[in-house]
Amino acid sequence: MIKVVSEGVIAPKGFKAGSVHCGLKRSIKNHDIGIITSEGPCKAAALFTTNQIVAAPIKYSRKIVRKGTAYAIVVNSGNANACTGEKGYKDAETMARLTAEYLNVSPDKVIVASTGIIGRPLPMKKIQSGIKKASMGLCNQHINAVNIAKAIMTTDTVPKHIAVKTRISGKGVTIGAIAKGSGMISPNMATMFCFITTDASISLNTLRSCIKKSVEHSFNQITVDGHMSTSDMVAILANGMAYNRTLTSKSGNALVSFQKALDYVTLHMAKAIVRDGEGATKFIQVDINEAKTESDAKEIARRVAESPLVKTAINGGDPNWGRIISAAGYAGVTLDESRLCLSINKIMIYKNGLPVTPIPKKLLSEMKKDEIKIQLNLGMGEKSTTLWTCDLSKEYIKINAEYHT
Amino acid sequence: MIKVVSEGVIAPKGFKAGSVHCGLKRSIKNHDIGIITSEGPCKAAALFTTNQIVAAPIKYSRKIVRKGTAYAIVVNSGNANACTGEKGYKDAETMARLTAEYLNVSPDKVIVASTGIIGRPLPMKKIQSGIKKASMGLCNQHINAVNIAKAIMTTDTVPKHIAVKTRISGKGVTIGAIAKGSGMISPNMATMFCFITTDASISLNTLRSCIKKSVEHSFNQITVDGHMSTSDMVAILANGMAYNRTLTSKSGNALVSFQKALDYVTLHMAKAIVRDGEGATKFIQVDINEAKTESDAKEIARRVAESPLVKTAINGGDPNWGRIISAAGYAGVTLDESRLCLSINKIMIYKNGLPVTPIPKKLLSEMKKDEIKIQLNLGMGEKSTTLWTCDLSKEYIKINAEYHT
Repeated sequence: MIKVVSEGVIAPKGFKAGSVHCGLKRSIKNHDIGIITSEGPCKAAALFTTNQIVAAPIKYSRKIVRKGTAYAIVVNSGNANACTGEKGYKDAETMARLTAEYLNVSPDKVIVASTGIIGRPLPMKKIQSGIKKASMGLCNQHINAVNIAKAIMTTDTVPKHIAVKTRISGKGVTIGAIAKGSGMISPNMATMFCFITTDASISLNTLRSCIKKSVEHSFNQITVDGHMSTSDMVAILANGMAYNRTLTSKSGNALVSFQKALDYVTLHMAKAIVRDGEGATKFIQVDINEAKTESDAKEIARRVAESPLVKTAINGGDPNWGRIISAAGYAGVTLDESRLCLSINKIMIYKNGLPVTPIPKKLLSEMKKDEIKIQLNLGMGEKSTTLWTCDLSKEYIKINAEYHT
Repeated sequence: MIKVVSEGVIAPKGFKAGSVHCGLKRSIKNHDIGIITSEGPCKAAALFTTNQIVAAPIKYSRKIVRKGTAYAIVVNSGNANACTGEKGYKDAETMARLTAEYLNVSPDKVIVASTGIIGRPLPMKKIQSGIKKASMGLCNQHINAVNIAKAIMTTDTVPKHIAVKTRISGKGVTIGAIAKGSGMISPNMATMFCFITTDASISLNTLRSCIKKSVEHSFNQITVDGHMSTSDMVAILANGMAYNRTLTSKSGNALVSFQKALDYVTLHMAKAIVRDGEGATKFIQVDINEAKTESDAKEIARRVAESPLVKTAINGGDPNWGRIISAAGYAGVTLDESRLCLSINKIMIYKNGLPVTPIPKKLLSEMKKDEIKIQLNLGMGEKSTTLWTCDLSKEYIKINAEYHT
């Protein structure tokens, strides 16, 4: 049983958050730096962008996470600290060190994350005073839960947070999360920020394996614009304060319960990112079924979901299904036209390689809905995948042609 | 010496063209079916889309071209005859047979091509009467050269044609071409229509090798929206009426002259397609230098050119170069950040992994220009590539969200 509760990352026992506006974003109302921390030490696991060009905080945090223990995450928005050379790396180190000082922990127990414009040095005076103020405000009140979610936003239009409760070997275990992401979203490893906290007691290896599995079917299966960021990170902190019997790979049903709750959180957050995709007016689910291999299915799903012609057709409410079929055709996967069947919102429009004629009238009204479900059956095997994306609108162009540098 | 001349596909000796409006496009002023033909038999070579889902005329024409001889190309716009099953294939055959009858040649000597909406059966009555009228109007007058270029247009805003003259072993040889393409343009084999005629005398194998080489560095190096069409075709007909000594792989300088003239034609047409890209306001050249392999360079060029974030930044005249670097980073090619150097219109803005500060003022005025040249040096080797693309504008969304089906 999974129960959704409030308070996001501070819902699990022993976690606090604090955030302030330090001057990276223009409006003083918008928080731009924050800290999430646990009373006690946490097992820490994370997945990072697979981009060859990674931001300084990713380079730094990779090292921290490899050791498997952390007390805190410090994160800023408005500046990605990417393409900033050695100075950038030192600035990330300084963020960790300052946070560690205020929390009275060792500096190698702090994960650092930054998001925003690429190629600008971090204004360290602002950052320094921000970290100080944020650490002074660390608390587990409702307003802190909301503000930390806002503090990581860039072009996001809504804060994204969730928490769920489940029972594991008789103990209540809570998982909380905040996420950000709207543009530069493309599925490959973690593609945005998601910081997850839990009071579950769990071994480091099991935590690593759980988060990897969970990301595979959530954040790795979303795309907004096919552009992979330099700063993506999904990190989880587990402080063990639920005092359940420690989860390991041999925990059977207890581990299944934890994985399910974690999957619920990551999928919820992944979908929230797509719904808030830059300029998005529609939420699109792409189901590819009957593929020979899962990787075939994923390749096709991605081509369909990233085709600007498919995305604009859906934006216009136009049942131009030929664009879906032709996008599937250039995924580098062998297809047999005469086995293909395509449905949109459960209305079959292309069956065994032939258009359904006349075009079902109901299709036009379905195309006007906010949620579009594309289902393509390949007839080549038994593997499936599901990927989530959004449409491509004039608003996306406006946001990205005018977003300053 | 290559000299540009007029008259497009009918510039070479012995070629005629004819086209009419038969009712596939709405306005009676817009021609939508046409024929290009030679007085004598031609060596024929072609490259086709690598999409797994191909239009019926592609399936038909592949067979014809394999035999190496043709007299004519019949082409319609407004309907792609794709995803139309067996009926579609028969309709393509019928188009070839009718054309052959009017030209008094064998039906297996006619190449067929169709472009337009996917998934609609061809209205064969209109096609039949169109082929009849177009064949009656076959001629080598200026108006025919212009009209055949217009007859293959879909969302194109300008007709695209060229002809060049060169000298080969003392004889004047002419190459002419028409092309279409504006959306669904992504580099992989031939990505649009280009029909090329020449009066050169050339062996079939040499013709095949020349066109393949030429396409590799022209049509395969352009992208508008990354969506590969089901109907792409580049075809060349060579009727030998220039009576030069027949070109073979052993023709040395004479073959070099022919290849140069052909490359001039294909590159001109490829660039014309990008300049007329759907909604395009800027012409973008992406140069990737100092790569370890050509394939690395191409992979990076494509990621940069197809990133909607790069394309919208250029649309907005925004020197947001971090988007270029981050797109290069997800091409699956190993990079060393500290060796990267990026210039836009020859202004260096990122040098050995560090931003050039302050940002050169001239960059802002350069970003407002119609032509943007991105040059990224990887410092990993000695291979290079050049790819051409256009920006992504609100107009692209308008065209494609509203283009009817």
